[in-house]
Amino acid sequence: MKIYFAGSIRGGREDAALYQQIIEYLKTFGEVLTEHIGDPKLTDLGDDGPTDNYIHDRDLEWLQSADVVVAEVTTVSMGVGYEIGRAVESGKKVLCLFRPDWGRNISAMIAGCADLVLVNYYDLKEAKTAIKEFLER
Amino acid sequence: MKIYFAGSIRGGREDAALYQQIIEYLKTFGEVLTEHIGDPKLTDLGDDGPTDNYIHDRDLEWLQSADVVVAEVTTVSMGVGYEIGRAVESGKKVLCLFRPDWGRNISAMIAGCADLVLVNYYDLKEAKTAIKEFLER
Repeated sequence: MKIYFAGSIRGGREDAALYQQIIEYLKTFGEVLTEHIGDPKLTDLGDDGPTDNYIHDRDLEWLQSADVVVAEVTTVSMGVGYEIGRAVESGKKVLCLFRPDWGRNISAMIAGCADLVLVNYYDLKEAKTAIKEFLER
Repeated sequence: MKIYFAGSIRGGREDAALYQQIIEYLKTFGEVLTEHIGDPKLTDLGDDGPTDNYIHDRDLEWLQSADVVVAEVTTVSMGVGYEIGRAVESGKKVLCLFRPDWGRNISAMIAGCADLVLVNYYDLKEAKTAIKEFLER
């Protein structure tokens, strides 16, 4: 199984360590195409490629080749929203993970979309349970 | 011409007055389906509909019926990213307007996407010029 993990880069790297833990768990189910999203050396300058065109086209190719998309949506990110939009529009299975205790309002376009699965969670254990249920059903 | 204007709601309302000015200008070219985005009474609680499902499905229907999408992308917003992603994936014409002097990094997924037009601007006059060029070409 090819898994596209989506998390914030230029929107903010507060959750980078959490992304890494989620990615490690996702790797027990298949290949994570976007493992660099959890890299602690990757900053909100988002220099994970030589140009923005390169980054976009590489990530889009990964997204299109993925069987499923798992997105951590607590940190507000234009890129994560874009990826979810393209994935939903092209009919892919999408899981969004959100931490309600972080004090942010989740977008109505994510919370109100019937074509994706949104799970609220409070710790890594709950995130893992949600991922397992989503990937194994 | 039906125009879908996208701007941040729950991502932050700092630019609400600017959205209203852009919408007023867009109305000289056609019907703006999402005129409420510029409403100063609309807060980042995003209560522009009874439920998130209602908001999502209403906005998506507007997006799908629009001839063009114009997005102000300076304030980071998951919903705006989602709308741009769905619009690009379904082949719509998309203009993104960004203010580089606002101190934020634009997402590589927006800046690097060859299937949309991104224009950097510094004042309303420049935004209007970009909109006119985009809508009249």
